[in-house]
Amino acid sequence: ETLLPASAQTTDPLSSWNEGAAKKAILDFVRVTTDRASPSYVAPEERIAAFDQDGTLWVEHPIYTQVVYCLERVPTVVAARPELKGVEPFKTVLSGNREAIAKLSLPDLEKILAATLTGMSVEDFEADVKKWLATARHPRWKRPYTELTYQPMLEVLRFLRDNGYKTYIVTGGGQDFVRVYAEQVYGIPPEQVVGSVGGTTFGYTKDGKPFLTKEPKLLLNDDHAGKPEGIHLMIGRRPHAAFGNSVGDRQMLEWTAAGTGTRLTMLVLHDDAAREYAYGPATGLLDGKIGTFTQALYDEASKNNWPVISMKNDWKRIFPFD
Amino acid sequence: ETLLPASAQTTDPLSSWNEGAAKKAILDFVRVTTDRASPSYVAPEERIAAFDQDGTLWVEHPIYTQVVYCLERVPTVVAARPELKGVEPFKTVLSGNREAIAKLSLPDLEKILAATLTGMSVEDFEADVKKWLATARHPRWKRPYTELTYQPMLEVLRFLRDNGYKTYIVTGGGQDFVRVYAEQVYGIPPEQVVGSVGGTTFGYTKDGKPFLTKEPKLLLNDDHAGKPEGIHLMIGRRPHAAFGNSVGDRQMLEWTAAGTGTRLTMLVLHDDAAREYAYGPATGLLDGKIGTFTQALYDEASKNNWPVISMKNDWKRIFPFD
Ligand SMILES: [Ca+2]
Ligand SMILES: [Ca+2]
Repeated sequence: ETLLPASAQTTDPLSSWNEGAAKKAILDFVRVTTDRASPSYVAPEERIAAFDQDGTLWVEHPIYTQVVYCLERVPTVVAARPELKGVEPFKTVLSGNREAIAKLSLPDLEKILAATLTGMSVEDFEADVKKWLATARHPRWKRPYTELTYQPMLEVLRFLRDNGYKTYIVTGGGQDFVRVYAEQVYGIPPEQVVGSVGGTTFGYTKDGKPFLTKEPKLLLNDDHAGKPEGIHLMIGRRPHAAFGNSVGDRQMLEWTAAGTGTRLTMLVLHDDAAREYAYGPATGLLDGKIGTFTQALYDEASKNNWPVISMKNDWKRIFPFD
Repeated sequence: ETLLPASAQTTDPLSSWNEGAAKKAILDFVRVTTDRASPSYVAPEERIAAFDQDGTLWVEHPIYTQVVYCLERVPTVVAARPELKGVEPFKTVLSGNREAIAKLSLPDLEKILAATLTGMSVEDFEADVKKWLATARHPRWKRPYTELTYQPMLEVLRFLRDNGYKTYIVTGGGQDFVRVYAEQVYGIPPEQVVGSVGGTTFGYTKDGKPFLTKEPKLLLNDDHAGKPEGIHLMIGRRPHAAFGNSVGDRQMLEWTAAGTGTRLTMLVLHDDAAREYAYGPATGLLDGKIGTFTQALYDEASKNNWPVISMKNDWKRIFPFD
């Protein structure tokens, strides 16, 4: 017994969480699903936990990180395809007019995503994202985007994994984009990243080397109903825990909660403008396009006893560097 | 040292394999990729091995197991949709005329697959396949199809896993079909089954319970070029080992072999009519539609030093029940 350090018994796996209903829900869930004597016991191979990324694992304001990447990649794309220079929406992006860029329509944004995320080999794309992540900085914290992860959620990921859960990212963002850094940043390997994803085409270089080209053909829009569809496609098991922060996660949480036994379904509410951001419009917070958490979703969570995580009240620290 | 049984040192992980180049290739590959001192060492998280299923892990003659399932499911489908009764190709299948059924065209077969593999919830499909597998028997061995796995390949799966490899099935067959039994039969969990796969649609029952319906919309035809494309989609890493048995595996093996360091790419040649089947047409064996191994593929394997496994010469036993 003396070989076991006392700290192993007393260390809090969720030390960045304040005591409260949210923290208790996570601790209780892991206890009842991993205790063989519990009626809610879950066999190790069935332990799947799904995490939305933007706004759940890392900062998504003022704009999704991947969209920043795409916008900043436009000049390179236009240099290679000069015919796009005078064409919208590329013209607006090149103008640097932030107000006009912020007003781009969804179809315009999709044109930018297609032009910047496809047409290259999967290796070239990975290398380019890696390079960009190394130098890009968030406008508010002046730090790499990959440092803007939430310390309390990193603790949840680790705590679940330490208890035999396979942790998955299930994101509306691009699967190939998130895979570039998920292993290093979250300890989540590429094969456990489920995201919006397009097809690739297999081909050969002139000297016969095989390669895959990223195509502008969407196979899965991994948001809203696409999240449970993506979970079935990529995992083939219903998660026992799911974490999200917006209306895009509603169906994933419903699908998770509808399983038998004890399930954990939680939503992060951004109600901390001082330390991060505050937006809803649930509970009277600011309304907006990025990471919308509607009052209807909040009411659905209340009705179904899905614990809502208050960033302000439940989290002692926000970032690893705090 | 006395605590370690002598058998642990001397047990042959590939005891159903005869000594020879094929067995040696597998043993050498695992040795050099797991020895930290080796220049070919592969980090544990990168240890991915991909296995074709039909003809590589289990019997595919005289007809793919899943096609048998689909054909036998036609009467149930027609009972629910009587308008199909007089319509081809359902009429031919219902006639029971084996010769006519064997001559069905690929578009006809696709109609049967669409009618029998889609339109139900993912749970109903899983339950139906399970039920079918419990009673269906192979015409030659009069055993469940799930018993007709190759003992030497089960040993390779286990040996690779014992050495830190994640084993994946990468099959032209249906992803949802193979997932039903892969964990029990191969020790491969659903999330490590990559196959041909269609979309699903999320919806709600009348009483608000969410469910997913299988749709006749193909997302991935996981054969030929679709295999490396499927590997990228579902795994996001290049395998270090890949096993196949037909022209449908060519691109997967090329993609695997094109990676850096030591890669293992092997093909099973069915040259044992006495214990299983003999077909090619490589090396002058019988030509046919199921599991075609062309001479061109054989020559490509020779040229690139991909070891070809001779079922007749390399395998001591074929089945676990032998
Ligand atoms: Ca989100
Ligand atoms: Ca095959």
